[in-house]
Amino acid sequence: MSKKVFAVIGTGAIGGYYGARLHHGGRDVHFLFNSDYQHVVDSGLKVDSHYGDYSITAAELNAYNNAANMPKADVILVALKTTQNHLLETLIRPLLKPDTLVMLLQNGIGAEQEVAKAFDLSYVGGGLCFICSNKVAPGHIDHIDYGRITVGVYGEDGMEPLESFARDLTSSGVEVDIDPKIVDARWKKLLWNVPFNGLSTVLDSDTAQIMDCPELVHLSRDIMIEVQQAAQTTDTEIPTSLIDTMLGNTAKMKPYLTSMLLDRRNGRELELQYMYKNAIELAKKNGVSMPKTSTLYQQLCFLDRQDS
Amino acid sequence: MSKKVFAVIGTGAIGGYYGARLHHGGRDVHFLFNSDYQHVVDSGLKVDSHYGDYSITAAELNAYNNAANMPKADVILVALKTTQNHLLETLIRPLLKPDTLVMLLQNGIGAEQEVAKAFDLSYVGGGLCFICSNKVAPGHIDHIDYGRITVGVYGEDGMEPLESFARDLTSSGVEVDIDPKIVDARWKKLLWNVPFNGLSTVLDSDTAQIMDCPELVHLSRDIMIEVQQAAQTTDTEIPTSLIDTMLGNTAKMKPYLTSMLLDRRNGRELELQYMYKNAIELAKKNGVSMPKTSTLYQQLCFLDRQDS
Repeated sequence: MSKKVFAVIGTGAIGGYYGARLHHGGRDVHFLFNSDYQHVVDSGLKVDSHYGDYSITAAELNAYNNAANMPKADVILVALKTTQNHLLETLIRPLLKPDTLVMLLQNGIGAEQEVAKAFDLSYVGGGLCFICSNKVAPGHIDHIDYGRITVGVYGEDGMEPLESFARDLTSSGVEVDIDPKIVDARWKKLLWNVPFNGLSTVLDSDTAQIMDCPELVHLSRDIMIEVQQAAQTTDTEIPTSLIDTMLGNTAKMKPYLTSMLLDRRNGRELELQYMYKNAIELAKKNGVSMPKTSTLYQQLCFLDRQDS
Repeated sequence: MSKKVFAVIGTGAIGGYYGARLHHGGRDVHFLFNSDYQHVVDSGLKVDSHYGDYSITAAELNAYNNAANMPKADVILVALKTTQNHLLETLIRPLLKPDTLVMLLQNGIGAEQEVAKAFDLSYVGGGLCFICSNKVAPGHIDHIDYGRITVGVYGEDGMEPLESFARDLTSSGVEVDIDPKIVDARWKKLLWNVPFNGLSTVLDSDTAQIMDCPELVHLSRDIMIEVQQAAQTTDTEIPTSLIDTMLGNTAKMKPYLTSMLLDRRNGRELELQYMYKNAIELAKKNGVSMPKTSTLYQQLCFLDRQDS
């Protein structure tokens, strides 16, 4: 059996970290870069990690700046922001084989189904990364904490390739959970992301400022309940106790700037479609309205248009 | 019959303008000042108006910095922001006679009932001022445009003093409408104020920026529909055509900074209770929820707390 080929599409804080782990575990990993390409060709890829630093030298690194030049892959890790998903036709089409496992390491709801349809794939995997990791300079990733990944797959015949990929991760030192109902995990992550990413961005505030304001705690809870009800329309049961737990944990957290607020402050496009629009439309199709979530979404659309 | 005494509580853009008009019409007007007191004692009150400039010299001006020194009044014009209404006990109690007409020239819902209860008055008047007027310096008001006032009264036996006051205004050159259902007029003004004051403040934007964003036009309409439904619980029928007209007019308006946004930018307390809280609670008591309006209100509470 020839060696499995891994492709990382989007070598940033997430793709760079997990790709480097797989490389460290002896896998054949090919990385697509954008603006960092020339830097890594000269200097390689560097990961500072609280699990031990790791570098891939320029000579060892399979770096590309054009997907058309990459080999066909057994596993494609898509670690782009969802705002870049319109580029997937160009970025993953050249890499697909009949049995390729595409893994979307992204936030939000609905992308796996879209990708399965667009590329006529019988299965598409999804991953939720619980990690603190930042790209601090070109080709330089700082992995601060955590790193566990929850993976699942849409399409029944995808379980075997998914389990094989999970073993690759485990043996490369990554903690993995397989969640056969990945959609449940996605909704649970949205439960936090929808209120806190949105409110922090609209009000330009961190999580501690939000939790210090009784009206916003109330609003966050109301929005979480809307997400809970939306999830229910896709047979995902979120217990109300999880809402209380998440609010309690958020109150205890150090002040945290959400990814969407950082995107806004850095003039980047906001991840509105998969984090808001898809959930609102899915719920609406199933007869559930999300008025407070929609209000936040409409305000975020305004901010996003302002910056574009 | 002795000459009617008028008291102006809060001599700013609104109180200063209407008080000066009544003075110009030969009425006996007494003005309460706060920070501008020493200036007007030295230099008088000046109103630049597109209807003709008018000044009251220091010698002619009945200026006070303490309500306890003012005479009992037949008509008290309250032209404070509603955020100052907790001061009314101190500011109007000394001026009350058994038949005094208190006129609240303020925005929002619910203040007349509160004042009637607090001071055990059988009637309290309300006025809605359709005016562009600013205080541009101490004792100096710039009246830019409009000036019509719609007045009404809570309490049946208040019609006679209200009509008498309306005649005083008319003969002083102010356009007046008497609206026996002043609450209808108040709701109609809220119909615009609730979405546009709130969204402009939360998103730090003018009306043109809001109307340029399709999602916010949609949200504004949704919020107006919530206000329409809330008004209905107090038997105020707002035709949907008015919502369309207001949105159309707002789209055609020159970019406009709402009073609440200006309050925010100037670090002043926001008028949340009478413009949002009372309407939301009134609707809730009558079984109508206002989720989008509540979202905006909760966000505004956060901004208001930040500044306080």
